[in-house]
Amino acid sequence: MSIFNFSAGPAVLPKEVLRGAAEEMLDWHGSGMSVMEMSHRGPEFIEIVEAAEADLRTLMSVGGDYAILFLQGGAIGENAIVPMNLLGDRKTIDFINTGEWSKKSIKEAKKYAQVNVAASSEDENFSYVPKQDRWKLSDDAAYVHVCTNETIGGVEYHWTPEVGATPLVADMSSHILSRPIDVSKYGVIYGGAQKNVGPAGLTLVIVRKDLLDRALAITPSAFHWKEQAEADSMLNTPPTYAIYIAGLVFKWLLTQGGLAAIEKKNVAKAKLLYDTLDASSFYSNPVRKEDRSRMNVPFKLRDEALDAAFLKGAQQRGLLQLKGHRSVGGMRASIYNAMPIEGVQALVDYLREFERSHG
Amino acid sequence: MSIFNFSAGPAVLPKEVLRGAAEEMLDWHGSGMSVMEMSHRGPEFIEIVEAAEADLRTLMSVGGDYAILFLQGGAIGENAIVPMNLLGDRKTIDFINTGEWSKKSIKEAKKYAQVNVAASSEDENFSYVPKQDRWKLSDDAAYVHVCTNETIGGVEYHWTPEVGATPLVADMSSHILSRPIDVSKYGVIYGGAQKNVGPAGLTLVIVRKDLLDRALAITPSAFHWKEQAEADSMLNTPPTYAIYIAGLVFKWLLTQGGLAAIEKKNVAKAKLLYDTLDASSFYSNPVRKEDRSRMNVPFKLRDEALDAAFLKGAQQRGLLQLKGHRSVGGMRASIYNAMPIEGVQALVDYLREFERSHG
Repeated sequence: MSIFNFSAGPAVLPKEVLRGAAEEMLDWHGSGMSVMEMSHRGPEFIEIVEAAEADLRTLMSVGGDYAILFLQGGAIGENAIVPMNLLGDRKTIDFINTGEWSKKSIKEAKKYAQVNVAASSEDENFSYVPKQDRWKLSDDAAYVHVCTNETIGGVEYHWTPEVGATPLVADMSSHILSRPIDVSKYGVIYGGAQKNVGPAGLTLVIVRKDLLDRALAITPSAFHWKEQAEADSMLNTPPTYAIYIAGLVFKWLLTQGGLAAIEKKNVAKAKLLYDTLDASSFYSNPVRKEDRSRMNVPFKLRDEALDAAFLKGAQQRGLLQLKGHRSVGGMRASIYNAMPIEGVQALVDYLREFERSHG
Repeated sequence: MSIFNFSAGPAVLPKEVLRGAAEEMLDWHGSGMSVMEMSHRGPEFIEIVEAAEADLRTLMSVGGDYAILFLQGGAIGENAIVPMNLLGDRKTIDFINTGEWSKKSIKEAKKYAQVNVAASSEDENFSYVPKQDRWKLSDDAAYVHVCTNETIGGVEYHWTPEVGATPLVADMSSHILSRPIDVSKYGVIYGGAQKNVGPAGLTLVIVRKDLLDRALAITPSAFHWKEQAEADSMLNTPPTYAIYIAGLVFKWLLTQGGLAAIEKKNVAKAKLLYDTLDASSFYSNPVRKEDRSRMNVPFKLRDEALDAAFLKGAQQRGLLQLKGHRSVGGMRASIYNAMPIEGVQALVDYLREFERSHG
């Protein structure tokens, strides 16, 4: 039986990556060491991290005016680390509130700054992205913060905000590397690795270098972007094994044809699943069609009393981790880069079968 | 040729642990998932993390009045996170300065508090641990901070400080789990995992529960000990794969007979190496004998012009990563739990041979 893992994160990784990691576990490239056992300052690991950074720059077309940092703490940690690094002498941060992850970012930022919620979709239970002409931005915000893919709500920006000279900061944790983006439109892009990048415990930060001078004095050195940029992310010991796995994922993406190619696959996967949900009155997805996430597809059964039977049947068919987030219930299928279309097809087949037998 | 890896960290791991991890990489216990692909809230990973915590409690005899947290950030991150969590309404922290890692802790703490260096061994180039009768502790310190093993200087406490009612906080990164300790003497014990515990990217914090109420308002949620304790370290996504490897290391330690048994081996390994260095005038170690680290053994060749030849010969014999820290030069042999005595014997044989041919 094929296994397909729909976890929202930590999430499915390419089988080729896992096989390669297993083969090299005790001896990386004849070094006699596991990657876990290497000094982060030794030539072997330097080769690994430099290749990872170069491949990420290629994949995302990151220019030389941006630093790429491999840090720890995850997106929730970064929610505090971003304002510490970017507030400077400003007092206010503008937020667009599109759901649970926006709210987490807002909560942390309030420890350091005044928060202006410039737009929110809370009026319709976070089922859409507020159009830009409704955003009420401040004149003097340190930056504008967006969460470009809400992992829990299943809402995604399919357009790039234009906020003028104010830096645009994006939490892209759950859709980074799923499609090409124009990095130059952003001041900072960050994300926890455990969706499309690699294992939990690694946080990517892509920051325009002219923004590195704004850190508050309370910023811990380990999370101080400028200090880390100057130290090539090695002010402290970075999460070396997670960086290695991320590097293998980057190489896998390049062999897939890069982000334009992976986007085509992601579009096809999402269309297959949403079309199936929309064709049925047994299942429902609450998100406005033009704002639906290609990565995270929450859906509900008409009768939630059937949830347990649905999940049990899915498990028996090797369709794993479909249970929705505890805050919203129902189901959620996360269909990241490493989910093949065969997995989505297997889910769609099961959705139809379950509806026939229980509808 | 046998390979022996003397890295100071990330460092050697038990071969049995790496073999087990390689075998389970694509399918943990028949789940159809890699541990890297599991939701941190799913039953599979909950089983892994609960076993890891229980085994660590057994190994270190950690009482129920202490919380064990599996966090991110490393020891340098924690150097800022400790004062944020522990300062409360106090203004001052007492530090014992025994070298590079103490200095890093002091540097971070100064961002949040007044630092009183209650004792220092800087007068003799950090080659000893100041005796307790020389400590000039404050009356009103929030806590007393010690680094119980200096990874760079090779200095270790072989006794437990007594600081009365003031909480004692110890950075034990590089010798945790190397011997039994009395946890009840400490308010907080912390350490980066990448020496004796597992991969880089995981930080252990063992904190007495009555100290969980002292966090500053600026403490990020991801690093807020009380919030993390209440969430079983899952306020954010923890570094799941690193926790899994740490759990395998804990099980390996239990099969070795626990910390009393591993201490005997560590004593024998350290004696073999120090005796060899002391018997020669070709090599030298600068640390006072009663304060020498069992884990990190820095040493110098009489003529540093021979350093490159020494390292090259070592590499050819499979004795890896012996180069000293860039701040002090010379050599350093880190002989953590996972280094077998055969590795130390191979190093000692090489030391004698190199002296014969170059002395």
